[in-house]
Amino acid sequence: MQRITIIGTGLIGASTGLALRAANFPGQITGWDRNPGRLQVALDRHAVDMAAADPLEAAAASDLILLSGPVFAILDWLEKLAPLLKPHQLVTDVGSVKLAIAQQAQPLFGSPGQAGFLPGHPMAGKEVSGSEHADAQLFNRAVWLFTEFPDHPLAAEWRTWVQRFGCHTMNIQARRHDEICAWVSHLPQFLATALSAMLEDRFGDAPDLRAIGGRALREMTRLGASPYSMWRDVAHTNQEAVADALLSMEQRLTHLRENLKTPELRDEFELANRFRATPPADK
Amino acid sequence: MQRITIIGTGLIGASTGLALRAANFPGQITGWDRNPGRLQVALDRHAVDMAAADPLEAAAASDLILLSGPVFAILDWLEKLAPLLKPHQLVTDVGSVKLAIAQQAQPLFGSPGQAGFLPGHPMAGKEVSGSEHADAQLFNRAVWLFTEFPDHPLAAEWRTWVQRFGCHTMNIQARRHDEICAWVSHLPQFLATALSAMLEDRFGDAPDLRAIGGRALREMTRLGASPYSMWRDVAHTNQEAVADALLSMEQRLTHLRENLKTPELRDEFELANRFRATPPADK
Repeated sequence: MQRITIIGTGLIGASTGLALRAANFPGQITGWDRNPGRLQVALDRHAVDMAAADPLEAAAASDLILLSGPVFAILDWLEKLAPLLKPHQLVTDVGSVKLAIAQQAQPLFGSPGQAGFLPGHPMAGKEVSGSEHADAQLFNRAVWLFTEFPDHPLAAEWRTWVQRFGCHTMNIQARRHDEICAWVSHLPQFLATALSAMLEDRFGDAPDLRAIGGRALREMTRLGASPYSMWRDVAHTNQEAVADALLSMEQRLTHLRENLKTPELRDEFELANRFRATPPADK
Repeated sequence: MQRITIIGTGLIGASTGLALRAANFPGQITGWDRNPGRLQVALDRHAVDMAAADPLEAAAASDLILLSGPVFAILDWLEKLAPLLKPHQLVTDVGSVKLAIAQQAQPLFGSPGQAGFLPGHPMAGKEVSGSEHADAQLFNRAVWLFTEFPDHPLAAEWRTWVQRFGCHTMNIQARRHDEICAWVSHLPQFLATALSAMLEDRFGDAPDLRAIGGRALREMTRLGASPYSMWRDVAHTNQEAVADALLSMEQRLTHLRENLKTPELRDEFELANRFRATPPADK
């Protein structure tokens, strides 16, 4: 693997370039972004070695093509790239949902005569987007998930690079990925968005709210800064699982509200305490 | 102010003792806790100079008495202490709600012949309780709120000590305090509890959930570890405002769920982004 093209040099794409460099990737990294300013920042920060004038041309000349960005952008690129690529080439992605992406890729990649595809998803990110926030350490101690797809000669090599970023790699079925991520990633995001939006609506012009809110408020609203452009695609492509998680949360809050003065409240705290007794893997 | 008694040497009480020492308080700090182990840890960590055998006796011999613990415990102590104290003595507290506490204190403190009372609330804490987690820096850069009560000669001195902890002090009406705290502190707590309890219910035995969940999950469930004993009292003494905030959140989530594929989702993200554009005061 000597030549990598990163299509989409935002937070995750540019962080991947920086992580490759930090892990001493010896080859050439070409970048492209539909936003020229973001590409320039990625170039200035040495997340990529050169900017591609034509992303299709750059991809056609690469061993590995990394697709980074909102899910619909990844779906588009899969379709654009498939006719141009050869069987020795591998496409991989970092999309937040995997079933829609695998379904799009299925007829286009992985069969004889076609390029390979390896669906991936690093469980790392920030509430801020853009290459200016990229960080070589973003993936350190995170989990990088891969879902099922026909194997390709370069897939093992990419997994090795990902491990060199400090990631723990894990295989999971695409459907299970989307279900679990609805609960552990998408629901927390939409909760933070709803909480932040509600507080802005109700207290947008009340200076005491922000002055008084402490760590709890900062943490629970941090993801309120996340961009719509990224999450619209998740809402569209994982709608059923996200709606299921949101409905469960609504019902749980109703139950809690109706039991603020009953012993049921104790049961909720005990369950919650038990959840945190085996805390989520800490970074 | 030479002698201080801290009644309740848990996280906040013991942290206050440590903060007083770090700010070079020259007097004597006596501690008491209904849990002897917690008092011993506070003593071992030098959060207090000595353990009171009899908390009433210690309080009667002090200039300032700090009440720390769940709201109902503070309400009890106000009643127990009032008949023993003299006008030159000041009681202050760190309770999470203020209207119930001010109402309890109103006939007992602050009138001629009675000791003074200064209702307080530091906007700082942790999801773990106990003097073993106490920290002299807990209040650094936090806001320490005070609500209205007849003035007392020692009140200004206590505010000065609090500022020496690194706190920004702020006056707020008790009713406004309870309303704002319902939204910025109590709601985030009950959201984290409900989310953690729901995930434990649904995925308690699924190892992949915790392995996959990243920073978003860790942050949004951190407060799930908070103790019932503390929050039961908040739920009881600020029920109306908390129920109002919870109901609003339920409705907001329903709205978001019903609009996962409509342009309304963009409006929610825009409001949320605006809320975070002026982020809550960062510690």
